[in-house]
Amino acid sequence: MKGNIFYAQSGGVTPVINATAFGLIEQYFKNKKYFGKFYAGKNGILGALNEELIDISSEKKSELELLKQTPGGAFGSCRLKLKDYVKSEKQFQRIFEVFKAHNIRYFFYNGGGDSQDTTNKISKFFKTKAYAISCIGLPKTIDNDLPITYCCPGYGSVAKYIATSTLEASLDVRSMSQTSTKVFILEVMGRHAGWLAASAGIIKKRAEDPPHLILFPEIEFKQGYFLKKVRNVINKYGYCVIVASEGIKSKNKFISDSGLKDSFGHAQLGGVAPVLSNMITSKLNVKVHWAVSDYLQRSARHIGSKVDVEQAYMLGKSGIEYAKDNISDVMLTIKKVAHKGKFKWKVGHAPLDKVANFEKMLPKNFIKTNGYEISKSCMSYITDLTQGEDYPTYETGFPRYANLNCKTINKKLKKFNS
Amino acid sequence: MKGNIFYAQSGGVTPVINATAFGLIEQYFKNKKYFGKFYAGKNGILGALNEELIDISSEKKSELELLKQTPGGAFGSCRLKLKDYVKSEKQFQRIFEVFKAHNIRYFFYNGGGDSQDTTNKISKFFKTKAYAISCIGLPKTIDNDLPITYCCPGYGSVAKYIATSTLEASLDVRSMSQTSTKVFILEVMGRHAGWLAASAGIIKKRAEDPPHLILFPEIEFKQGYFLKKVRNVINKYGYCVIVASEGIKSKNKFISDSGLKDSFGHAQLGGVAPVLSNMITSKLNVKVHWAVSDYLQRSARHIGSKVDVEQAYMLGKSGIEYAKDNISDVMLTIKKVAHKGKFKWKVGHAPLDKVANFEKMLPKNFIKTNGYEISKSCMSYITDLTQGEDYPTYETGFPRYANLNCKTINKKLKKFNS
Repeated sequence: MKGNIFYAQSGGVTPVINATAFGLIEQYFKNKKYFGKFYAGKNGILGALNEELIDISSEKKSELELLKQTPGGAFGSCRLKLKDYVKSEKQFQRIFEVFKAHNIRYFFYNGGGDSQDTTNKISKFFKTKAYAISCIGLPKTIDNDLPITYCCPGYGSVAKYIATSTLEASLDVRSMSQTSTKVFILEVMGRHAGWLAASAGIIKKRAEDPPHLILFPEIEFKQGYFLKKVRNVINKYGYCVIVASEGIKSKNKFISDSGLKDSFGHAQLGGVAPVLSNMITSKLNVKVHWAVSDYLQRSARHIGSKVDVEQAYMLGKSGIEYAKDNISDVMLTIKKVAHKGKFKWKVGHAPLDKVANFEKMLPKNFIKTNGYEISKSCMSYITDLTQGEDYPTYETGFPRYANLNCKTINKKLKKFNS
Repeated sequence: MKGNIFYAQSGGVTPVINATAFGLIEQYFKNKKYFGKFYAGKNGILGALNEELIDISSEKKSELELLKQTPGGAFGSCRLKLKDYVKSEKQFQRIFEVFKAHNIRYFFYNGGGDSQDTTNKISKFFKTKAYAISCIGLPKTIDNDLPITYCCPGYGSVAKYIATSTLEASLDVRSMSQTSTKVFILEVMGRHAGWLAASAGIIKKRAEDPPHLILFPEIEFKQGYFLKKVRNVINKYGYCVIVASEGIKSKNKFISDSGLKDSFGHAQLGGVAPVLSNMITSKLNVKVHWAVSDYLQRSARHIGSKVDVEQAYMLGKSGIEYAKDNISDVMLTIKKVAHKGKFKWKVGHAPLDKVANFEKMLPKNFIKTNGYEISKSCMSYITDLTQGEDYPTYETGFPRYANLNCKTINKKLKKFNS
C-alpha cells in the first residue's frame, strides 16, 4: 500500500507559506502514482495530535491553485513546542498512533527553528519504533533566522513591503514637514534580530534619503544619543524617518515595556513606536506620526517578492522529489549559486540536527559602525531577495485569496487527552 | 503677455494627489500656446507667501511623468489656514503682490475643505483688486468628505489598501487563533467620519467573514457592549477582526485619549488600537495583535485603485481646459453617470462658495442598524471606487517614485514678514 503524506504549517505565518503548500500539492498531483493520500494537518502538529486531517482531494482544484497567491496559513498553524520525548513521550506516542492509523509515511513540517526541532524529535522518536517515514522540514520564517539556508521564504516579501512602506510614508512626511509632522516612526517585527528593520535600508541611496535612523535590537538604545540624532536630522533635512525594531532594548529592558499604563492602571502591551513618539514629542517638541505594521507586514501578499514566492514554491515542489527518494531528516534549504549581476539560487538540504535550535543573527558587518544604517553587503543581500513583483489576482477591488473548506476526514482513534 | 500658472498642494497628502499634478502638467505642455510658465508652489500656499516658485520646465520630463505613480505631495504641502481677509488682509495682499510680480493668471489649489476655502477667499480678494485670474479648486482628500463631488480622489486608493490589509491580516490571525492570537485590531484614519473604517467592510461577503466589528466615529463606543460582541464573535468563529476609526468616542471623549501615560508620566498621544487591545486583554484574557496604519494607508500608492488614479489624473487634465476657458471660482468634481453594472463617471464642477467649509459625512444608511457593519449601498459605493489596479513601476525591489529637484526661481520681491 502506498504511503500517505502529512503536511502541516507551524509557527507565525508568512505571505508565502501557502506557496510552499501549493508547490507540494501540485507536485504531489503530478506524482500521484508514488503516493497515497495527501493530508494537511489542521492547525499544525495539533492536526496530528487531534487526528484532524484534511484530505486535499476534497478541495476544489481552482481554490488550491489560489494558494500560491494567498497569505496566512490556509490549513491553520499553531504555536506548540513538543515536550522532550525522553522525559515525556505521550505526545510522540500519539503522533505515532495517528500516523500509523492513517499510514502516514511522509511528514512535511513547514516552519521556523522551533518547528524544525519538532520535526527532528518526531523523526528520532519514529526511529525508536522502527516505523519507516520520511521526515522533511520545509523552511519558513519572516525572521530570516534559520541557519545554513541562504535565506528563509517569507523574508523577501516582508522586506519588500517594509522597504516600500517606508519609502511611501517618507514621501508623505516630507511633504508635510514644513508646517506639520516632522518625524515618522515605523515599528516592524523582530524581537531578537534586526533582519526586518534592516530591510527598510535598501531604499537609501544618498545620505539625505530615508530611513535616517534604523533601530536594531542588536544595538543598545540610548535615549540621549537617539534624540540628538533625530534633532540633527531634522535640522539638516527638515524631516526624519525612523524604522524601529519591536525588540530594541535599553539596559536589557525592552523599550516597549517602558511602563505605559492605561487609565485603569493596566500595563500597556507592546508598541515601541508610541513610546519613541512620546519621547520625541516631549523632548524635542515636534509633531510625530507613527505606524505599527504588525500583522500587516507579515501577510502583505499583495506586494509579494517574485524571488521569495518562487523560492517558497520550489521548496514545496522539491519536497515531493525528496520524498520520492525516501530522503529523511533534512530541512530543505536555499543555496546561492555564484552569479554575476543577477542573483541565482537552487534548492539544497541540510541535516535537521544542524538546523534545529540555531538562530541566525544579522551578521555584524550588515550594520554600519554608526549603528543606525545598513552596510553595502547588507543592502545587496536584501535587494536580491526583494526582486520582482508577484501580484495576486483581484476581484471586486481586493485580492482573490484561496477559500478552502478544510473539512477533516473521519477519525479512527479515540480522542487524545493531552 | 500670456498668463502664468500657479499650482499648489495643500493639507494632508494622498497616494494620488501627484496624479492630479501630472494631469495638469501634461495638459499644460499640450496647450503651451495658451499659457506662459507653469509654477508649482513650494509647500502649498506658503510657496506664494514666501515667493518660492518651482518652474516645472526645469524638471526632467521623465521624472515628471513618474508623478502619476508617486504618492505624497511632490512639491510639498502645508497645513495653513489663511486669516479672514476682511479683518487681516496682510497675507492676501502678499499673495496678490507675488502673483502680480510673476504674472500669475491661473491659480489651482489642490486640497480638501479648508483648501477650497482658501481658494475661495483668494478669489474674492483678487476681485476687490480687479485683477483678472482664474481660481480653480482641485479636490483631494482621503477623508472623502468634500460636498457635491460624488467622491474625492485619494479615497478609493486608501479604501483599497485598507480592505486588502484587513483581509490579509484576517487570514493571518485566523491561522494563529487555535493556540495563539484570537483578536486583531486595525486602526485607521478618520477623526470625524467613518469613510475609511467603512472601506474594510467591502471584504465581508458572509456573516463569518471579517471584519467582524467596524467601529465608526459616528456610533458611540460602549465598552460593555463592545466586549460582549468580541467574546461572542470569538466563541462563534474562533477569532475576531476589528477595524477601528481613530476618532471613536465614548461620552464625547476620544477613546485614544483615555489616559495612557508613559513611565515619565507623559500622556500617551494617539493610538486607539493599543487602548482597545488593552481592554480586551485585561477583560477577556485573550491574546490580541494590533496595527496602526497611519501614514502607510495614506501613501500606499503601490496598491492604488485604477478608478481613483484615473479620476485624480482627469481632474488635473480638465483643470487646464477650464483655465483655457477662463472659468473661475469653481472646484472640479466627479459626477457619477447613470450606469448598469459598470461604474461610470465624468468631470464636472461646483461653485467654490458651495464647497468651502462643508463636510460630507458618511450617510446614515451606510451603517447597518447594528452599528458595526456597512450596508449594501455602502458596499456598492466603496467597491466602485476601488476597482482596478494601477501599479507603479519598480526598480531594485521597490517602486520607482518621482525625484524632482524642486528648485525655486529667483525672487523679485522682498522677504515676507508674516
